[in-house]
Amino acid sequence: MLSDCEKAITYRKSIRHFKEQDVDIEVVYSVIEAARWAPSGLNNQPWRFAIVKSREVKEKIANLSHYKRIFLEAPVLIPFFIDKNSIYDREKDLMGVGAAVENMLLKIHHLNLGGVWLGEILKAKEEVEKILEVSDNYEFLGIVAFGYPNEKDDKPRKRKDLTELIIREIL
Amino acid sequence: MLSDCEKAITYRKSIRHFKEQDVDIEVVYSVIEAARWAPSGLNNQPWRFAIVKSREVKEKIANLSHYKRIFLEAPVLIPFFIDKNSIYDREKDLMGVGAAVENMLLKIHHLNLGGVWLGEILKAKEEVEKILEVSDNYEFLGIVAFGYPNEKDDKPRKRKDLTELIIREIL
Repeated sequence: MLSDCEKAITYRKSIRHFKEQDVDIEVVYSVIEAARWAPSGLNNQPWRFAIVKSREVKEKIANLSHYKRIFLEAPVLIPFFIDKNSIYDREKDLMGVGAAVENMLLKIHHLNLGGVWLGEILKAKEEVEKILEVSDNYEFLGIVAFGYPNEKDDKPRKRKDLTELIIREIL
Repeated sequence: MLSDCEKAITYRKSIRHFKEQDVDIEVVYSVIEAARWAPSGLNNQPWRFAIVKSREVKEKIANLSHYKRIFLEAPVLIPFFIDKNSIYDREKDLMGVGAAVENMLLKIHHLNLGGVWLGEILKAKEEVEKILEVSDNYEFLGIVAFGYPNEKDDKPRKRKDLTELIIREIL
């Protein structure tokens, strides 16, 4: 039997359809709170976040993406960034940001919300930075869109077998 | 009260001292299993893993690092890689690998084991790839070292306040 930690890891999946129901701001903070605890090299914590609930701003971002509907339907967008002044090794720090984003996705799932990591919008990186009016210190790296799920959770997710992922065993 | 998912996210910390007690190979597989479920762009799952328990190979790797003791003391090393043939966007894929590594660290903590993400060893990327005898398709990105913890879990981890991490609220 899976514990609730194992369930979150194993059953979390991308949710792309949301109910109209709003998400309380305290819940949004609790999702970002999960990101805080991710590991980072030299504990530099290079991740930063914005919270977007404004319809007007969501529309501006949505218009830059092929996935317009998702941006408009999700009650909350969390654009995430790397703080350029905190970077000690860009590639390690990108992995660290990924760890922080995964914590948010797990927390979202755990709260019976649903979310999705949207990367395609990075093709409009500079436009999004301008729309969000963030300082030049912050480089936009993607968006987590989330809300109350409005889709049946019935498709099993496809993943490679463990045997394909383990390339060497030196025992 | 925190659920066990929230506890793993919040209390997971880097463990750098290990008991001599070995870790069963089935437990090692279950840790890598957690990585399988991470999200990736286009579901490309670019992450790959090795398992190192051999003392001889651990010594070779340890000798390349400032953190020699950790590599020698940990009963298990999981070097992780990106599959160059799977890459669709290097930066997004690096974040995806970070998400997969975080799942492993959470699972390790959840199992009452302790682990640490070692990135400094990347300064010897090519030497490690040679020692592990992996194909040119795989680029080494770091190591998770883990085992049964042999340190007191009494130092609270330091993290920035949430207010420092949230750079914009557009409500």
